[in-house]
Amino acid sequence: MLTSHLNQLTAEQRSRIMRRAESDTERVRGVVREILDRVRAEGDAALRDYTRRFDGVEVQDLRVSEAEVERAYASVSPAFLHGLRQAATNITTFHQAQLEGQHVVETAPGIHIWRVRRAIERVGLYVPGGRKIYPSSVLMAGIPARLVGCKLRVMCAPPAPDGSLPAPTLVAAKEAGIEHIYKVGGAQAIGAMAYGTETIPAVYKVFGAGNLYVAVAKLLVRDAGVELDMPAGPSEVLIIADGTADPRFVAADLMSQAEHGEESAGVLLTTSPELAAQVAAEVERQLVGLATAPTIRKALDSYGAILVCTDVPEAIAFANEYAPEHLEIILAGDGNHLALEQVTNAGAVFLGPYAPEPAGDYASGSNHVLPTGGAARLYSGLSVDSFSRMVEVQELTRDGLASIRASIDVLATTEGLPAHRNAVEVRFDG
Amino acid sequence: MLTSHLNQLTAEQRSRIMRRAESDTERVRGVVREILDRVRAEGDAALRDYTRRFDGVEVQDLRVSEAEVERAYASVSPAFLHGLRQAATNITTFHQAQLEGQHVVETAPGIHIWRVRRAIERVGLYVPGGRKIYPSSVLMAGIPARLVGCKLRVMCAPPAPDGSLPAPTLVAAKEAGIEHIYKVGGAQAIGAMAYGTETIPAVYKVFGAGNLYVAVAKLLVRDAGVELDMPAGPSEVLIIADGTADPRFVAADLMSQAEHGEESAGVLLTTSPELAAQVAAEVERQLVGLATAPTIRKALDSYGAILVCTDVPEAIAFANEYAPEHLEIILAGDGNHLALEQVTNAGAVFLGPYAPEPAGDYASGSNHVLPTGGAARLYSGLSVDSFSRMVEVQELTRDGLASIRASIDVLATTEGLPAHRNAVEVRFDG
Repeated sequence: MLTSHLNQLTAEQRSRIMRRAESDTERVRGVVREILDRVRAEGDAALRDYTRRFDGVEVQDLRVSEAEVERAYASVSPAFLHGLRQAATNITTFHQAQLEGQHVVETAPGIHIWRVRRAIERVGLYVPGGRKIYPSSVLMAGIPARLVGCKLRVMCAPPAPDGSLPAPTLVAAKEAGIEHIYKVGGAQAIGAMAYGTETIPAVYKVFGAGNLYVAVAKLLVRDAGVELDMPAGPSEVLIIADGTADPRFVAADLMSQAEHGEESAGVLLTTSPELAAQVAAEVERQLVGLATAPTIRKALDSYGAILVCTDVPEAIAFANEYAPEHLEIILAGDGNHLALEQVTNAGAVFLGPYAPEPAGDYASGSNHVLPTGGAARLYSGLSVDSFSRMVEVQELTRDGLASIRASIDVLATTEGLPAHRNAVEVRFDG
Repeated sequence: MLTSHLNQLTAEQRSRIMRRAESDTERVRGVVREILDRVRAEGDAALRDYTRRFDGVEVQDLRVSEAEVERAYASVSPAFLHGLRQAATNITTFHQAQLEGQHVVETAPGIHIWRVRRAIERVGLYVPGGRKIYPSSVLMAGIPARLVGCKLRVMCAPPAPDGSLPAPTLVAAKEAGIEHIYKVGGAQAIGAMAYGTETIPAVYKVFGAGNLYVAVAKLLVRDAGVELDMPAGPSEVLIIADGTADPRFVAADLMSQAEHGEESAGVLLTTSPELAAQVAAEVERQLVGLATAPTIRKALDSYGAILVCTDVPEAIAFANEYAPEHLEIILAGDGNHLALEQVTNAGAVFLGPYAPEPAGDYASGSNHVLPTGGAARLYSGLSVDSFSRMVEVQELTRDGLASIRASIDVLATTEGLPAHRNAVEVRFDG
């Protein structure tokens, strides 16, 4: 892992850290376009054919049955179910609080304006397959969608060679209230949810991360008016710590992020050269015996860095430019809260020594679907807002309208819209 | 204008009303791609060349000077300035209320999570040119951007053949606190704000509607990671009214929406056959002498309809399927508020006889940038949310983390992420 003083980085080193892993979406665009077009034209038949080719399994019934979900419950451990339910409870508590309404604003006497929240009626969730299983991600999308009242909640995931979906994923879906679950993965699943097939209903917005084909499919259906949650990329953490931080904690947190994949990133900025050295040594120590050690080592060698900086403001400036998905701040005294005030770009912030990023990943109640690769400059993480819209409502009295009558007159006239002026004037005629 | 009983519409008629005007973005994609690529490669030189070709004017200094803004103030009427400022005051009041913070949620003892709002640092606004002038739209984007604290706020608009921008537009920009104003329009302006040039700084998100070239340019730069406000299309209103509504008001409101352009739509759903007939007659009567009458007539003939329905729920069901940009509800008693509860898809709702849509367009304080063409199923109108992100923050005590330790353990283990487990366990070692 690169270890350096921040202001001794070469331009090339700095740029490599900032840039992180980039994926070449152009390369697969043509293939994905073809898959989407075929799903649109042929529906379920195309889904079955792609599932045969890509997942190596013949799926007759695309929809997961109630019996399959019951078998999934029977196969998971009581400890898993208890953990999942504690996570679901905390996620529900935090997201429920996001639903609080906005009060009515009287912008002037007799003019009342407010906003009402309305669920997006049809939403879809993609859950990736392969060797990894992510029940926690099912909760992160499923719970806010249910809380806000999305009427149709669909989930797609690629089946294993035996035609099944992982039991923890099915249990998580059921716990989150997702009733429509389908065995189809890849770009073809995104196409199915965007266009609809005989079996799978079309939705207005698609959530969830997958491989490059899935990511490109989401971009392509967006052009056709089906919105996506946010651009998804490799996971990352940036940690700001001073000499009071425990190097074991900092090392463990860098590693936990890096184990997501060889393209993940973990960056430490510290005012303490001692901590920098201790963290580097701790990473080596903690890697021993860890099953994901090769992935972690590759990720930290490629996209990781331990950077010593002169002061905390310098670290925050770097973090704001980096716009990390996860930002941990471990400083003495009230340094964490003071630093937070200066943070402009981050997906989620973890304050203090006992808020490791995996707490938010799993069970604290926060949402772990967050913008990556610098997109935190622009996007929020998932919340009830992602599954709903705010509709403006206004109600005016005759006097309220009278109070803005002259302004509407002059503005409509300036804009060359006499019928706009007329719509107000007609209300005061005679 | 089509007048019919709702359940006597042919499938073709119903589909034409629902579909509204569609634009063929494919047709101009190639040209727009070429413009964007040249702006990216050649910067200001490309902007000057396109401005020469498309706007017929040689612009040396792309940036609008302070002196030009001062001259604009000198040229507008006191009535205009007063109207603009009243609108700005009401818009500020309504949008300020949207900034209210979310309180800290304790999802479990010792686990605190909240969200902080952070402005998108760099935003750009496109203002269309041509014969029409839209100072009100400048307020709608400029005021929330300033309120939420976007650091860099850029505006681009195409210059007239004499090289000037319209005085009302410049005054509105100044009133809304936009300091960086540039004389460039069309797809080239979108490219300039997306990629940056020597003169025009790059932004993260582009707002504002324009012609088809502008709309396609916004879609194309989105693929490169520059977000857009929402897909923009022709304006529309859907009105639900019973026999108590004043036909003069309803006719005026249908017309005010239709005057935006020949592709605009105005649809009335009423439980009263008498009102239907009266509104049709009123439209003819009010069209006399109106400068925009030909546009209104064309729009209402193409995309307008007066539909008699059996009851209010039938009208609401149609409206929810239509997902109108503007929805007016004019019913007796507390019918307006009861109907609002059933509205799922609309950009903005106007309740009662004294809330004509132009009130919200100009001066009530609501935002008039709203989703069109059915996009209200999916998008909210502009608000402070459009110019900011919510960053999750969490802080845990040691006991708080201990309370979810077992859940993280089992979930991380299920997901094959041992370093995630380790990041928690290391905090309880020794």
